[in-house]
Amino acid sequence: MSIKRMEVLKSLAVEAPTKIVMLVIDGLGGLPDKDGMTELERAVTPNLDKMALEGETGLLEMVDVGLTPGSGPGHLALFGYDPLEFPVGRGILEALGTGATVSKGDVCARGNFATWGQRDVIVDRRAGRIETEKSRELVRRLSEAITEIEGVKINYYPGMEHRFSLVFSGEGLCDCVSDADPQREGSPMKWAEAISPEGAKMAYIANKFIQEARKVLRDEPKANGCLLRGFSGVPDIPHLSELYKIKPLALAAYPMYKGLASLVGMDVLDDIEGSPAKLIEELQARWDAYDFFYVHVKHTDSRGEDGDVAGKVKVIEEVDKVIPSLMELSPDVLVVTGDHSTPAKMKGHSWHPSPIALLSSYVRPDGSSNFGERACARGSLGIIPAWKLMGLLLAHGRRLKKFGA
Amino acid sequence: MSIKRMEVLKSLAVEAPTKIVMLVIDGLGGLPDKDGMTELERAVTPNLDKMALEGETGLLEMVDVGLTPGSGPGHLALFGYDPLEFPVGRGILEALGTGATVSKGDVCARGNFATWGQRDVIVDRRAGRIETEKSRELVRRLSEAITEIEGVKINYYPGMEHRFSLVFSGEGLCDCVSDADPQREGSPMKWAEAISPEGAKMAYIANKFIQEARKVLRDEPKANGCLLRGFSGVPDIPHLSELYKIKPLALAAYPMYKGLASLVGMDVLDDIEGSPAKLIEELQARWDAYDFFYVHVKHTDSRGEDGDVAGKVKVIEEVDKVIPSLMELSPDVLVVTGDHSTPAKMKGHSWHPSPIALLSSYVRPDGSSNFGERACARGSLGIIPAWKLMGLLLAHGRRLKKFGA
Repeated sequence: MSIKRMEVLKSLAVEAPTKIVMLVIDGLGGLPDKDGMTELERAVTPNLDKMALEGETGLLEMVDVGLTPGSGPGHLALFGYDPLEFPVGRGILEALGTGATVSKGDVCARGNFATWGQRDVIVDRRAGRIETEKSRELVRRLSEAITEIEGVKINYYPGMEHRFSLVFSGEGLCDCVSDADPQREGSPMKWAEAISPEGAKMAYIANKFIQEARKVLRDEPKANGCLLRGFSGVPDIPHLSELYKIKPLALAAYPMYKGLASLVGMDVLDDIEGSPAKLIEELQARWDAYDFFYVHVKHTDSRGEDGDVAGKVKVIEEVDKVIPSLMELSPDVLVVTGDHSTPAKMKGHSWHPSPIALLSSYVRPDGSSNFGERACARGSLGIIPAWKLMGLLLAHGRRLKKFGA
Repeated sequence: MSIKRMEVLKSLAVEAPTKIVMLVIDGLGGLPDKDGMTELERAVTPNLDKMALEGETGLLEMVDVGLTPGSGPGHLALFGYDPLEFPVGRGILEALGTGATVSKGDVCARGNFATWGQRDVIVDRRAGRIETEKSRELVRRLSEAITEIEGVKINYYPGMEHRFSLVFSGEGLCDCVSDADPQREGSPMKWAEAISPEGAKMAYIANKFIQEARKVLRDEPKANGCLLRGFSGVPDIPHLSELYKIKPLALAAYPMYKGLASLVGMDVLDDIEGSPAKLIEELQARWDAYDFFYVHVKHTDSRGEDGDVAGKVKVIEEVDKVIPSLMELSPDVLVVTGDHSTPAKMKGHSWHPSPIALLSSYVRPDGSSNFGERACARGSLGIIPAWKLMGLLLAHGRRLKKFGA
């Protein structure tokens, strides 16, 4: 169904001189605290409330009822892709999160430093959770020693503790490869295998890499080897411009979100700061060059993950303060929402739908004068699948022809 | 999903001595005007408001979020067919709109008078948008000169300006034929081609028709030829009576809606007037002979298309005045809704959901005492896909068995 909808939208999309802004407040939705209010309800947000009053409100079901989205699926849905139809591998998401540049044909993998014992038994899959600093040093040594294997270039991206990411670039690589990881400690190494014939080369290169790394790391007491898993390439996702005849720009400071935006074909700004005020400044500077703007505010999610109610409230209030600068640009369509909920009470992502406020010249304001989860639940948009939002934005931007005669 | 639902409904449908009335106010939904009220909210509608108070209200998502339906998809949805699963070609809709009678096996096409230049280059695809009167005269000349080609009968239906419709009737015709139209001016003629082998005969007849028409029109300064496109036959739609064991009657004055009703197997009254009062009179006269009544009021849409707020309000108020006569018949189920929105502010169809009020002995009244878009958005039906309405009406008419034991 979602694929059919995408095809229909594509067939109806036309160019128009309208500008659409999608402001994503990461992990926006929350849960009531002891005082009975969510973070968003507690925050003092006169500008968002005014937007709710003059626009339409509702809730976005991010992936499906009861499913807690990771950042990948949450954002894909906001960009118009049903996450159940467009799975994105962990390998590539982790690589994107470490700032990797990944092109079509490349294959990403998540790496772990590990302790190898006699006869290739994996003694510790995390090498005693070695320090991040130590891990970075080892990644540097590997990257100097192994730059390519049989014509396949290898790029390295260090991560936290024992983790790192690799991007393999070369001819004939396919991500249809099983993990090079026994999953259980005390078991002998399980080498990568091709899941389908096209994966043969990648499996061979991955195993060869692990053997070479063993040599480089042989004198390390704990991290004397590594494991690779989550092999994944750039998913076959049609770009937003070819689907909807828009020219999209991402204003996001964190690698994961820049990576997600580039996966769907957005232009991405390098080296920008993530505060709401700075993001809007950058947007203002590029207003004439694009017609679709994705703006990503990260720290609501971070404070939610920390269980820091006051901190999350503060970030929401910072966002509220920049709304007037956004409005000065007179976007034809402005939507404010989240990519998933991150209730401080849960210290993590949750399945609860995200509040949304939508403003354009073609709304039916529903009388809600409060941008909060419970007010939005009574809004005139109702609860809509997040992957349908993009079509709604195009409609409000007068960028869709009539369906049928 | 929608096909499965249709099969389930069919398996559950039983006959019952109940009467269902579906009153469709074309383009009913609107947008707030300067005073903050929509056309429907502004209209004085005591009878519809009473119906909302005693019944259930909600919104119908006509095709899908953000999609603006044409009259065809909007009506198909109301009749229970998911428009994304039951596409209806433009050719047949246009033919139906001009009052054409189309049977299974016929193929319809949209015609344009066009200006042909040297070596079959299409100079003007619309023949300078010739006057409707001139166009009618040319259609008459063609219809006298070319009544059939190799056993295939041709029926002509004049349209506005350069437009007309053709219906080809004969053995072995299939609508799997590409447009006989270069799409671009200054390009040489592109002749019809079979898209699949069964289209060969239709493509041949279409091209032959265009050549014959060239001879008839050769002395015309502008309209010295024609183009044909949108070849389409009667879609393979199961009839309402076989799906749901109902005997349906359409009370509609305009050709497009009569045609749509006949596509789904309704009996259709000829030569009736379109005013709400006249439609209800006709309905009263046929009350005993049918058990499902589709009543279509056109002018709300027309006034909306004209941007005439006051005019649209007036038509809604006229509809309101006939509700008591309808209620006197004591229908078991009465539903009032639209086939799409036509906000006067937009002077055209829009994607906004349609308000709906449903009355039967089995409703959960939601306390709404106002039949308006925003009140309906808070109604107890919620927002439901329009193609699910038919099943709900059958349920309220006690015409569906229990699903499962």
